[in-house]
Amino acid sequence: PPGVYDTFVYKMLMFLSYLSPCVLGEKGPVDMASLISSIIQHSSPRLRPVRHWDTTLTVQLDLRLYSILDVNEKEEKVSLHVLCTQRWKDEFLSWDPAEFSGLSHFTLPVSSVWTPDIIVREAVSVGRVEADAFVSVNSTGWVQHIEPLLLVLRCDLAMFHFPFDSQRCNLTFGPNLHTVEDVELVPERSAGAVLNASRQSIRHGEWELLSIRTYSFTETQGSHSYSRITFQVEMGRSSLFYVVNLIVPSGFVMLIDLAGFAIPVESAERIPFKVTLLLGYTVFLVLVNDLLPPFRENTPILGVYFVVCLAFLSLSVGESMILLAL
Amino acid sequence: PPGVYDTFVYKMLMFLSYLSPCVLGEKGPVDMASLISSIIQHSSPRLRPVRHWDTTLTVQLDLRLYSILDVNEKEEKVSLHVLCTQRWKDEFLSWDPAEFSGLSHFTLPVSSVWTPDIIVREAVSVGRVEADAFVSVNSTGWVQHIEPLLLVLRCDLAMFHFPFDSQRCNLTFGPNLHTVEDVELVPERSAGAVLNASRQSIRHGEWELLSIRTYSFTETQGSHSYSRITFQVEMGRSSLFYVVNLIVPSGFVMLIDLAGFAIPVESAERIPFKVTLLLGYTVFLVLVNDLLPPFRENTPILGVYFVVCLAFLSLSVGESMILLAL
Amino acid sequence: PPGVYDTFVYKMLMFLSYLSPCVLGEKGPVDMASLISSIIQHSSPRLRPVRHWDTTLTVQLDLRLYSILDVNEKEEKVSLHVLCTQRWKDEFLSWDPAEFSGLSHFTLPVSSVWTPDIIVREAVSVGRVEADAFVSVNSTGWVQHIEPLLLVLRCDLAMFHFPFDSQRCNLTFGPNLHTVEDVELVPERSAGAVLNASRQSIRHGEWELLSIRTYSFTETQGSHSYSRITFQVEMGRSSLFYVVNLIVPSGFVMLIDLAGFAIPVESAERIPFKVTLLLGYTVFLVLVNDLLPPFRENTPILGVYFVVCLAFLSLSVGESMILLAL
Amino acid sequence: PPGVYDTFVYKMLMFLSYLSPCVLGEKGPVDMASLISSIIQHSSPRLRPVRHWDTTLTVQLDLRLYSILDVNEKEEKVSLHVLCTQRWKDEFLSWDPAEFSGLSHFTLPVSSVWTPDIIVREAVSVGRVEADAFVSVNSTGWVQHIEPLLLVLRCDLAMFHFPFDSQRCNLTFGPNLHTVEDVELVPERSAGAVLNASRQSIRHGEWELLSIRTYSFTETQGSHSYSRITFQVEMGRSSLFYVVNLIVPSGFVMLIDLAGFAIPVESAERIPFKVTLLLGYTVFLVLVNDLLPPFRENTPILGVYFVVCLAFLSLSVGESMILLAL
Amino acid sequence: PPGVYDTFVYKMLMFLSYLSPCVLGEKGPVDMASLISSIIQHSSPRLRPVRHWDTTLTVQLDLRLYSILDVNEKEEKVSLHVLCTQRWKDEFLSWDPAEFSGLSHFTLPVSSVWTPDIIVREAVSVGRVEADAFVSVNSTGWVQHIEPLLLVLRCDLAMFHFPFDSQRCNLTFGPNLHTVEDVELVPERSAGAVLNASRQSIRHGEWELLSIRTYSFTETQGSHSYSRITFQVEMGRSSLFYVVNLIVPSGFVMLIDLAGFAIPVESAERIPFKVTLLLGYTVFLVLVNDLLPPFRENTPILGVYFVVCLAFLSLSVGESMILLAL
Repeated sequence: PPGVYDTFVYKMLMFLSYLSPCVLGEKGPVDMASLISSIIQHSSPRLRPVRHWDTTLTVQLDLRLYSILDVNEKEEKVSLHVLCTQRWKDEFLSWDPAEFSGLSHFTLPVSSVWTPDIIVREAVSVGRVEADAFVSVNSTGWVQHIEPLLLVLRCDLAMFHFPFDSQRCNLTFGPNLHTVEDVELVPERSAGAVLNASRQSIRHGEWELLSIRTYSFTETQGSHSYSRITFQVEMGRSSLFYVVNLIVPSGFVMLIDLAGFAIPVESAERIPFKVTLLLGYTVFLVLVNDLLPPFRENTPILGVYFVVCLAFLSLSVGESMILLAL
Repeated sequence: PPGVYDTFVYKMLMFLSYLSPCVLGEKGPVDMASLISSIIQHSSPRLRPVRHWDTTLTVQLDLRLYSILDVNEKEEKVSLHVLCTQRWKDEFLSWDPAEFSGLSHFTLPVSSVWTPDIIVREAVSVGRVEADAFVSVNSTGWVQHIEPLLLVLRCDLAMFHFPFDSQRCNLTFGPNLHTVEDVELVPERSAGAVLNASRQSIRHGEWELLSIRTYSFTETQGSHSYSRITFQVEMGRSSLFYVVNLIVPSGFVMLIDLAGFAIPVESAERIPFKVTLLLGYTVFLVLVNDLLPPFRENTPILGVYFVVCLAFLSLSVGESMILLAL
Repeated sequence: PPGVYDTFVYKMLMFLSYLSPCVLGEKGPVDMASLISSIIQHSSPRLRPVRHWDTTLTVQLDLRLYSILDVNEKEEKVSLHVLCTQRWKDEFLSWDPAEFSGLSHFTLPVSSVWTPDIIVREAVSVGRVEADAFVSVNSTGWVQHIEPLLLVLRCDLAMFHFPFDSQRCNLTFGPNLHTVEDVELVPERSAGAVLNASRQSIRHGEWELLSIRTYSFTETQGSHSYSRITFQVEMGRSSLFYVVNLIVPSGFVMLIDLAGFAIPVESAERIPFKVTLLLGYTVFLVLVNDLLPPFRENTPILGVYFVVCLAFLSLSVGESMILLAL
Repeated sequence: PPGVYDTFVYKMLMFLSYLSPCVLGEKGPVDMASLISSIIQHSSPRLRPVRHWDTTLTVQLDLRLYSILDVNEKEEKVSLHVLCTQRWKDEFLSWDPAEFSGLSHFTLPVSSVWTPDIIVREAVSVGRVEADAFVSVNSTGWVQHIEPLLLVLRCDLAMFHFPFDSQRCNLTFGPNLHTVEDVELVPERSAGAVLNASRQSIRHGEWELLSIRTYSFTETQGSHSYSRITFQVEMGRSSLFYVVNLIVPSGFVMLIDLAGFAIPVESAERIPFKVTLLLGYTVFLVLVNDLLPPFRENTPILGVYFVVCLAFLSLSVGESMILLAL
Repeated sequence: PPGVYDTFVYKMLMFLSYLSPCVLGEKGPVDMASLISSIIQHSSPRLRPVRHWDTTLTVQLDLRLYSILDVNEKEEKVSLHVLCTQRWKDEFLSWDPAEFSGLSHFTLPVSSVWTPDIIVREAVSVGRVEADAFVSVNSTGWVQHIEPLLLVLRCDLAMFHFPFDSQRCNLTFGPNLHTVEDVELVPERSAGAVLNASRQSIRHGEWELLSIRTYSFTETQGSHSYSRITFQVEMGRSSLFYVVNLIVPSGFVMLIDLAGFAIPVESAERIPFKVTLLLGYTVFLVLVNDLLPPFRENTPILGVYFVVCLAFLSLSVGESMILLAL
C-alpha cells in the first residue's frame, strides 16, 4: 500500500516544484533519485502491472534447495530450506538507459512494487528470514524477486519400506487468487538444472536428494482455472543409523533367544532367561513406537518384523513352560 | 486503514489534475489504473459496504478441508489445514464493463477493501501462510476472499472407544461484533459438496474423513443476535497402529501369564516369572498414560482393560504366593 | 495512529469540496460514509475521549470463560480461552439518530478509535486469534470492544492435595499506565452471572469450573493509584484418571509386597521377588517426578505417599535379608 | 515515524483553519485535543528530545520482578517476568498547567514520542504482553514509560552445589547505539528498594529471591562509551523436591546394597540381588542426565555422588563374584 | 517506506513556512530538529545512497559472538547470540559540523534511512530482540547499524569423534539481491580481533570457542556476482560430561561382565546375571539414540563402541549357554 502514497508524494513534489521552484530549486532530489522517481511514477503496488487488463502476466519461477532440514515421521511434515526466485515483466517499469545516463538496473523495497500472490499449497508454515526485502528492476521492466524461505510441508510419507524408504514430497506453487488469464506461472529452468543446483548444497545429513521433477498444469476450481507448478522432490533415507541402532541389536536378542534352546528344559534358568529377554524386547517396541507414524494401511515392514519377533519370543517362553509342565 | 488515504490520494490526484493539467497531463496514470481508481474511489476499508445503513450484508462462506494435520489427545486439540472462501457484495464496487473497455474483474490487496470480521469460535490459533493477500472483484460488485488457514481447534474428544473411536469437531464461523442485522452468514454449498471436495484431498494419514454437517443458526448474546455457521467434521481413527503396538503385545503378556499356571506351584521359577511379567506390564501403563487425556467421566475402555489386566497379573502373583505358603 | 490522518483526510476532503465543489460534487462520498465521517471527525485514537481532562473515563469490563485449555503443573501456568468485553463512552462519538436517517449504530476498525491500555497482570502470554478487530459504536457514544483471548497465566498452584486438589487463579485486569483519576474499571455483571455464562461452555475436560469471584479495588504504586478488577477462577481437578493410573497400580504393588511375607524366609525366591518389586516401583517415582512441580514447602501428599511406600519396600527387603542372615 | 505526520497534520490543520475558519470553525478540535496538539507540536519520535545536541539525556530506570518463571538448567536460560519503568525529560513536552486549564498530565501512544533504545544484553527473547502501549507525560516534560516484559536470559549457572545451589543472573540494561554523551542511564531506586518491591510478588515456586544488586558503569567499545546498569539477581533453589525424589531414593538403594552383604556369599541370591540393584540404579543416572547441563569444569557434586554410588555398586557386585569364585 | 513521507513532510513544512511564516513562525521546529531535517532531506530509505548509480557502496561488516546458546545434534542446528555491526557511507547524509553549531553525529530510526539487505545464508531463524532500532550518523555520512541477533544456523556436524569432537560452522553474510557492483562487503576487523572480542564473552558452557576465520569472496549465481563474507566459527566440545555419564558407566557394565566369567559355568547364577547386564545395557543404547543424529557415512565412534559392547555382551551370554549345554 505505501507505494501509492509514494507515487503521490513524488507527483506532489513535482507539482510543488512547478509552483515554487525557488523553494526546492537547487536543493531538490539529486540525480539518481529523480531519475528513478520519474521511472516508477506510473507503477502501483496495488494493480497488476499490465497496460491492458486482458494481458496475461507471465511469472517465471525458479527453485533451489539449500537443505532438507527435518523429516518428522510422526506428524508427516518435511522442513525444507529453499531459495525461491520469481521474475516477471512490469510494463510500467521500463526505461531507455540512454536517457538516464546509462542506468541499467536498480533496486527497490518489495513494498514499492506489485508482487504476485504465489503460495505453496502443501505449506503449513512459511518462514522468512529476511526483514527488509528488495526487488531488482532492469531497464526492460523485468523485476526479479529472490527470497530464501523455510517451508514446512505436509507430505504423505510412505513408511512401508522404513528405514530403507525414499519419499516424494510435492511443492505446488500457484497464485492464490489470480486466474490463469491474469497470472501464468512457467518454470525458469529445467528440472535437471534445478536438481544440479540443489545437489551442490545438500551433501550431508540423513537424507540424500535423489531427483526433482517439475509439472506445469492448470487446475480448475469451480468456474475458474489457475496456473500451477509442482516441484516433486524425491529423497532417500540413509538407513545405516537405523540398522546399527534398531535392527542389529534386535537381531542380537533373537539370536540369544535361539541359543537359549540349548539350555536344558529342566534347567531352572531357562524360563527366567527367556522372560527377561521378552521384557528387554519391549524397549525396542517403545523405540519403534516413537518413530513410526500411525498408519492406515500398508503396515510398515519394520513394525511387522518387531511384532513377529515378539510373537516368536512369546511362543518360545510358552514352549519352555509346556515342556517344563510335561 | 491505508485504503482511506488511497481514496484520498486518488481524489487529490484528480483535484490536482483539474488545477494543473499541464503538470501531470499526458504522463498521468495509464488506462487500467485510472479505470480502477475511478471504480474504487467510493469504497472504504473502514465502513460496511452498503449504501443504506439498515441493509443486511450477506456473506457466503465456503470451506474445504486440505488435511487433518494432528489430533492431540492429551491437550484435546485438533489441527486442520483448510481453504476458507468468503464472498459478499460490495455496493460501492460495481461498474459497467462496457464503459471500461470490457474489464470484467480485477484484483486488489485485501487491505484496500472492507472485509467481515469472521472468526472461528473454537480456534485457539489461526495460522496464515500467505503474506500478501488479494481479493478479487467482479463487475457486479461481488468480492471473493480466498484464504488457506491453519486452524488449531479446541475439541472435546470422546476417548471412550479409543482406539476404535471417531471424533466430531465443530468449526463455528461467525462475525465477532456485527449483529445479524448487519452481517448474515450463509453457506455457499451444501454439506455434501463440501464433503466431496474435502475427500479428494484427505486420502492418507491416521484419520479418515467420515462426514461434514453444516448448521446455520442465530446465536443470542445479551440483547444482540449473531449469525453463525457450524461445520461439524466427523473423522474416524485408523486403529490398526494401536492394535499392533498396544493391544497385541499386551495380549501376548496375558497369554504367557495364563500359560504360567502350567508351571508347578513348587517350582522356584513360578513367582519370579510372574513378577517379571508384572514389571514388564508397567511399560504398557506408561505408554497408555502418555496417550490418553485425563478424563472426568466415561473412563476409556482401553484404560479399564489395562488396569483389569494389571489386577489379573497381581492376583496371579498373589495366588502363586499363597499356594506356595500353604 | 492512522485515525488521526483519517480525521485529517476527511477534513481535507471537506475543505477541498468547499474550494472545488465541481470536482468531487455528485461523485463524492455516499450517504452512510459521509454521515459517519462527520460523526467521527472529532475523535482521535491518541487522546482519551473526554471533553474535559479531569473527567474520569469508566470502562465496563466483562469476562466469559470459553475453556480451561491446559494446566501445566511443572511450570505453574494455566491456559484459558476467554471472551473479554470492554465498554466505555467516547464523548466525541455520539449523534442524534434522527438527524442521520435513523442510524443507531455502526462498526469501525479498532485502530480508528481510542482504546484503554488494559492488561492482565498475571498473563505471560496473550494470544489474539482475530486479525482485523472492529468496535461497535452506538448513538449515545458507547463503544463496545469484544475480543476472544488466549491467556497463559502464572498461577501459584497448591499441589498439597494432588490429585484431589482444586486451584484458584487470579486474572487481575487494570490499565497499565492510566491512573484511577483517568480510567476507572467496573465489572459489568455480577460474579454469579459471569460464572453462569462460563459454565455453559465448560462441560468437558480434566477441570471443572467451581466458582468465579470478582474483586474491584484500587492499587497504589508509588504516588499513583490504579483501578483493578480481579477475577478469581476456582477449578477442581477430576482425580479419576490419576487414581486409575497412579494410585491403584501403586496399591497393587504394595499389596503384593505384603502378600510376599507369606513366602517362607528360607525360600530362594523371597529376596529377588522383593527387589524386583522395588525396581518396578521406581517407575512410579519417575511418573510422579514428571508430574509434580518442584515445591518449596507443603510437600504434596502424593509425593510423601510414594516415598513412604518406597521406604516400606526397602525395609521389607532389608528385613528379608536380616532374617535370611540369621 | 507516524508522529511526524501527526505534527504535520496538526500544523496543516492550523494552517487550514487560518485560511478557512468558516470551514472548520466551531466544529474544530475541542478543548483538550487542541491543547495537547499545541503542546506536542514541537516533538518528534525520531529525534532525541533535547534542544541542544550536546545535552546528555538522563534516563531513570527502575525494575520490579513479578516472578521467576523458569530456570532451564540444560540450556542455561532463566525466564523472568519483570515490570520495567523508564523516565526521562522530553524538553519539547512541557507546558504551564495554568495556561491549559489546570491540565497536569496526559497519556500518548508510545509511537508518538521518542523513546530510548534500551536493550538487555543477556536477553535472548523479549516478550511484550501489551499490544497498545501508552506513555504518560506531565507538565514538566517528564515522560514515564512502564512496560511488563517477559525476559529469557542467558545466565551461566553454577551447578556445582546442585540441588543446594543459588544462582546469580545479570540483567545489563543499556542503550544499543546512543553513547554516554547522548543517553545516560541512572537507577531510580536503591537496590534495596527494588528487592523489597520484588519480594512482595515472589512468594511461591521453586526459587526464592535472595538479593538484588545494582551496578552502574560505563562500557567502552572501540572509540565509544556506553552507559550501563546491571541488576544482579541472586536466587536460591528450594532443594526439598530433589532431596525427596533423588537423594532419598538413591540412599535407600545404597542402604539395601550394604544390607546385601548380610546375605551369605554362597547363597544363590546374592549376585542377582546386587545386579538388579545396579540395573535399577541406572534409572537415577538417566534422571540426573536429564537434569544437569553439560559442564566444562566443576563437575556437579550430585553427578560425582551418583557415579561414586554406581562404582560402589559395581565393586560390590564384583566382590560377590570373586568371593563366589574362590 | 515512511522516510519518503518524512522527506515530503519536511519539504511541505518548508513550503508552507514560505507561504505563511506568520502561522508557524517563531513556534516552528526548534534548532536541532530543523538542522537535522535539512540534513536528511536528500536521503530516502528506498534508494541506494550513492549520487551516481554506478558507484559501488562498500559495507563494513563486524561480528562479535556473545554466546554459543545451543548445539542441537539431532537437527544439526547451532544457535548463536551475536552482535552484528554494519557501517557504510550514505552520500546524502553528510554535513559541515561548523555550519550546524558543532553537531558531529545524531541518531535516527532505522526505517528513516536506506539499509543493505544483508542476510546470513545458513540461518534458518533470525531473532531480533530490539523493538525500536536506531542508526547513528556522523558528519562525514558514515552510518553505523549495530544489532544483537539470535541466529539459528544449519551446520553440518561432524559427529565422528563425539564426544571429543570440535565443530566448524559457517556464517556467510551477503546481500540477498544487490550484486557486487552495487554493494560490496568488507570485514571491518581481522579474524584475530573478532576472536579476541568474542572470547571475552564466552567463558562458560559446554562449548569452547577455538577459532574464527574470515573469508571474503565473490559468488557467481547465473549472470550475476555477489559479495560474500564467511565467518567460520570453530568450537570444541567439553567431553567431561559425556565421559562421566556415558562412557564410565558403560565401562563399569563391561568390567562386571568380564568379572562374570569368574562365576563357575555350572552355577545357576551365571546366565541370569549376564542377561540382566545385557538388558541394562539397552538403557545406554536409548541414551545414545537420543543424542546422535542419523548419519549417512562416518558412523560415530561412540555408536560403534556401544554396538561392539552389545555384541560382546551377547557373545558372552551365548558362550555361557553353550558351555552349560555341553
